[in-house]
Amino acid sequence: MIGVGIIGFGTVGVGTVKILRENHWLIKQRTGIDIRLLKIADVDLKRKRDVNVEPNLLTDDPSEIINDDRIEIVVELIGGIRPAYDYIIEAIRKGKWVVTANKALLAEKGTEIFKLAREKNCEIGFEGSVCGGIPVIKAIRDGLIGNKITSILGILNGTSNYVLTKMTEEESSFEDALKEAQKYGFAERDPSLDVDGVDAAHKLLILILLAFHYQLRMEDIVVRGVRRIEPIDIKFAKEFGYKIKLLAVAKLFGSEIEARVEPVMLPINHPLSSVDGVYNAVFILGDRVGANLYYGRGAGADPTGSAVVSDIVDMALRMRGEKKIPRIPVVSDEIKGVRPGNEVCAPFYMRFIAEDRPGVLSKISGILASYNISISAVIQKGRKEGGFVPIVMLTHEAEEGPLKKAKDEIDKLSFIKGETLYLRIEEGSS
Amino acid sequence: MIGVGIIGFGTVGVGTVKILRENHWLIKQRTGIDIRLLKIADVDLKRKRDVNVEPNLLTDDPSEIINDDRIEIVVELIGGIRPAYDYIIEAIRKGKWVVTANKALLAEKGTEIFKLAREKNCEIGFEGSVCGGIPVIKAIRDGLIGNKITSILGILNGTSNYVLTKMTEEESSFEDALKEAQKYGFAERDPSLDVDGVDAAHKLLILILLAFHYQLRMEDIVVRGVRRIEPIDIKFAKEFGYKIKLLAVAKLFGSEIEARVEPVMLPINHPLSSVDGVYNAVFILGDRVGANLYYGRGAGADPTGSAVVSDIVDMALRMRGEKKIPRIPVVSDEIKGVRPGNEVCAPFYMRFIAEDRPGVLSKISGILASYNISISAVIQKGRKEGGFVPIVMLTHEAEEGPLKKAKDEIDKLSFIKGETLYLRIEEGSS
Repeated sequence: MIGVGIIGFGTVGVGTVKILRENHWLIKQRTGIDIRLLKIADVDLKRKRDVNVEPNLLTDDPSEIINDDRIEIVVELIGGIRPAYDYIIEAIRKGKWVVTANKALLAEKGTEIFKLAREKNCEIGFEGSVCGGIPVIKAIRDGLIGNKITSILGILNGTSNYVLTKMTEEESSFEDALKEAQKYGFAERDPSLDVDGVDAAHKLLILILLAFHYQLRMEDIVVRGVRRIEPIDIKFAKEFGYKIKLLAVAKLFGSEIEARVEPVMLPINHPLSSVDGVYNAVFILGDRVGANLYYGRGAGADPTGSAVVSDIVDMALRMRGEKKIPRIPVVSDEIKGVRPGNEVCAPFYMRFIAEDRPGVLSKISGILASYNISISAVIQKGRKEGGFVPIVMLTHEAEEGPLKKAKDEIDKLSFIKGETLYLRIEEGSS
Repeated sequence: MIGVGIIGFGTVGVGTVKILRENHWLIKQRTGIDIRLLKIADVDLKRKRDVNVEPNLLTDDPSEIINDDRIEIVVELIGGIRPAYDYIIEAIRKGKWVVTANKALLAEKGTEIFKLAREKNCEIGFEGSVCGGIPVIKAIRDGLIGNKITSILGILNGTSNYVLTKMTEEESSFEDALKEAQKYGFAERDPSLDVDGVDAAHKLLILILLAFHYQLRMEDIVVRGVRRIEPIDIKFAKEFGYKIKLLAVAKLFGSEIEARVEPVMLPINHPLSSVDGVYNAVFILGDRVGANLYYGRGAGADPTGSAVVSDIVDMALRMRGEKKIPRIPVVSDEIKGVRPGNEVCAPFYMRFIAEDRPGVLSKISGILASYNISISAVIQKGRKEGGFVPIVMLTHEAEEGPLKKAKDEIDKLSFIKGETLYLRIEEGSS
């Protein structure tokens, strides 16, 4: 059992608490560890929240968490520099391990916090501080640990990316796109931190520390936002084969780092160019792994909560202090088996090679109809009387079983050549 | 110090050894752990390899590794079912932790191997078995640990993806595209495992075990390859707004899993549709994190070696068995500082708003030339004599310092309105 206390019961706090409760069993099954949420502190205890917690868990005094000996992991989710900094410092002094999603704090006070953590043999988890639910911090720290990283390109701010995407798709002005972002809750009333590049720069400093092992300061880097971009710039970009993106860039040249946040023109076929809306992505070059890209939602209660929880679990696993704790994939008995493939519904693409004569189409569609398969589109091209031509159909949702039977029946028709090909249309979950 | 032995000194073995040697210091600095490569076994010790190792490290007898008490981690990189399976079982019996990149073995014998590992309190690392250098195993195991994963869509086989990409880009036949893949070493002489979907299915089973906690068998799932796809199918797909991809799909429906590997039509704007060539990617839906995508090179000595090394280090960190081992970002003294932003070279986009009268263009380009900035393209649109129109230029590579000076000088000209905008063109590293 590992005791956890959370300071800050706002958006991300609620997301975190929900995951710790609703997926508690799942996490326990996967790790063998029982993560216990023992206390939540917030200045406002009366606000209606999206999760129910027992009143005795709540306090308006963070020191109740910091001084609670049962609590080994303190999660700071209030944001801003003060008093978050003071709580974190106090917690480390007490020997607590700390999880935070506070990028501004780490960008500004990271050096001091990490120094104290090193002295006190404590860890600071900060997966939630960069790109919300994308586990990019752990990717750099663990997955790419054998690599010298030479370059990082990131779309690190969802608000400006949403604004640029709207400007690109709807040819709207910066002001209109920003208003829309504010309407949907993707931008703050004062959007400066986001659209002026400051938030992205905070995150870039954190990535640089992890990847290049150097603590840059905000004043070291060029930070430019997206306010000056106009619809004509986006139009010209398109004409030249580019997309305008607010890009955070860090590259290593020998012992020098190049670092900046600014709107740039990115080739339309670069993997980052298709990262639109509120999504974030980080493109990393390692000397061994080559190009890697990590993509996902950069903010929000649940994605950021997911990152915070991953830090808590990661720490808990290393805190148990037993010798050699292997991690072996667990097999649960929740899953009963495989859904038979031919019961899976999807629209299908069917391609027949058929003799080009009257009545063919009606015969094929008649057989499909007898299996209850309806057609959403037909293309028949390159007519040549008496020869063989491809006929293509898209179906509405159908089960594969009947579709295959219909196809087998059609393939027996005298005017069909070879075996008909069908492909499922995977609309993609998102 | 952690002792490591490698069985199998082929492509991935060489990649792994090179990383352990060439980035040894980097890994030690990042983790405090000294990973020592103590022995390498291979049947062929004479072959010329891309790395030099001391002859006394080499043996043709794997049992020298399995029985060496100094070796705590055994890395199996010979591939295939036998004798790889026997070496792994023997190593686990001896209490060794095992790293492998052998997807066929895990797909076929995973249940037994994991069962024995659990009994012996040993771990099996297999990051290298799925998607080469993309740390997707660790993403699922660690980064998304708070998530119930509901869906996985993957482009898991580089060979078939290369073939489909060639067929799409060059309208070539399956046979021609495959021949090209073979020419460049992206396909084996016998390509069946790759183009028939078997390799992708092996990987899918591993992802399913990790994400859904269920051990499917190969015979449980539908596996279809790409041989039957013809250029006309690719053309029709395009017409309907789709791309044909060999997709590995696993979805959770209550207590049932849907799983299959088959070519499908994927909407052109789905994030996986832009994954081309030998690249792999995995698209994951978690109940908290939403959509996540992981992209990178799916095979090759260095990318797979990068994954193997990440497993070795991950294990080594947990093997030390001390109480509470925090991981704090290290600051190295290798980096000296930031490269001044205005010395960074790039092509630039410049957008002037200028009065539409003769001589304007020559004046602007004259000033740019005086700062040694040369122009690669100019667009001037919507002429209206006497009014103001945008003039757009792309420059060749230039430093920002002189460019800004030129811009400031140009902005002082009487026929220029407002402040000229310039954006760097980030060609993107890849």
